[in-house]
Amino acid sequence: MTEDAKPGDAFGEVLRAVLARHRGLEQTRSIGPRTPRPVVEIVERDDGFIRGGPADWYLAGPDEWWPSEQKALERMVGRVLDIGAGAGRVALALQDRGLDVTALDPSAGAIEVARELGVRNLVRATTEEHVASGERYDTFVLFGNNLGLLGPRDHAHRFLADLAALARPGARIVAQGTDPHHTTDPLHLAYHERNVARGRPPGLYRQRVRFRDLATGYLDYLLCSAEELVDLVAGSGWAVVDVDEQDAPLLIATLALEG
Amino acid sequence: MTEDAKPGDAFGEVLRAVLARHRGLEQTRSIGPRTPRPVVEIVERDDGFIRGGPADWYLAGPDEWWPSEQKALERMVGRVLDIGAGAGRVALALQDRGLDVTALDPSAGAIEVARELGVRNLVRATTEEHVASGERYDTFVLFGNNLGLLGPRDHAHRFLADLAALARPGARIVAQGTDPHHTTDPLHLAYHERNVARGRPPGLYRQRVRFRDLATGYLDYLLCSAEELVDLVAGSGWAVVDVDEQDAPLLIATLALEG
Repeated sequence: MTEDAKPGDAFGEVLRAVLARHRGLEQTRSIGPRTPRPVVEIVERDDGFIRGGPADWYLAGPDEWWPSEQKALERMVGRVLDIGAGAGRVALALQDRGLDVTALDPSAGAIEVARELGVRNLVRATTEEHVASGERYDTFVLFGNNLGLLGPRDHAHRFLADLAALARPGARIVAQGTDPHHTTDPLHLAYHERNVARGRPPGLYRQRVRFRDLATGYLDYLLCSAEELVDLVAGSGWAVVDVDEQDAPLLIATLALEG
Repeated sequence: MTEDAKPGDAFGEVLRAVLARHRGLEQTRSIGPRTPRPVVEIVERDDGFIRGGPADWYLAGPDEWWPSEQKALERMVGRVLDIGAGAGRVALALQDRGLDVTALDPSAGAIEVARELGVRNLVRATTEEHVASGERYDTFVLFGNNLGLLGPRDHAHRFLADLAALARPGARIVAQGTDPHHTTDPLHLAYHERNVARGRPPGLYRQRVRFRDLATGYLDYLLCSAEELVDLVAGSGWAVVDVDEQDAPLLIATLALEG
């Protein structure tokens, strides 16, 4: 009899493990390489597709980022809310530049790791929960594919309304995503078709993070093209003012409050 | 509605992907590091525990092996059957030393990759299936944790009887395994207790390999100490004549035909 993973903060546990490894925690020997093995984050999609990748990049500084990410740092100004901050790589880069930045993440593990790494302003909450704080920001950062947090249209509009409620006049969103239509992978293309057949956006990935015995809940994560993004946000009060696709299929979109 | 992985040669697909990466297949960009990402093999245990690790070590030459593995090469003599050969790292090392070695693996992907890498004698079959070949060997190699293929007692004795049927006089088994009792990981300790409560050996791991949309069947894989191994093989016609634990919890056991 096989059991499923237990519900829990799998993402936070990935980051805790990355931090422990970063601090030189000893590994036990195992079959395979004598060289240290990376902490691996596993993402499982609802069609049974699974993938894993080393998670140490969550601690990477700007020198190791994609060029489009480095350039996007310049567009993060004023008081910044780093949404889904993870281990705080963006918050730390902005702090180092003297900005007033708050790292927001619903994961207890993420918040703990970001604190350990030196992020000063931390809030453990979802964006929706954070609206009640009454805080106001000039820039909202959605990095590490967190453009995907917009999700399908209804959710995206509620999410963008929350950001509008947290916004100072002239506020911007700087959001990193992935254009799913660059892929030639038949498994992804089949998944896109399945989504369309179900009336979902093609790049709406329903997936969860797994680590050891834990799994997050399945979350609708949106991968979209620049064109789909423009269409998605129409009528939300926000408008796409720039899309940097130099590292395609990665894209970095800048959105501004309308009117 | 979430779907499970599809039954298939997930292990072989891992090796095909490692070979493609080894040959310089281009990767698409993704969120995360700019550096190439390794192919990751994911192993899922029946209690929901999951782990992933880079799979490139399946192609590693003896220079990169654990010292106990390097030393064990000296004990592989005469006509050799490399059981569960995978990408053929041991078969290739023995071929390079001029030995007559056959790589045996039930995975079509493994056999294809081993052929591509230059292994000359290849058989796609289980050990049980290979008995009918009438071939005879001086050394049976069970590397890459393949001591675990012995499984629980009944299975181990059938497996060892198959090896006896394939054996020349004086034949040896050189088998690499892992002693599960070195761990202090509460998840593994709880799994061992669960096994014992069910009348199973503590280190009998029921697990499957996952890769992309595929999963192998769940297989009973035995992790055992040197002492447990001695007990396990008693009465099988084989005896443990040496156990090298210099890289503990890894162990390399040498077994000889009795009488």
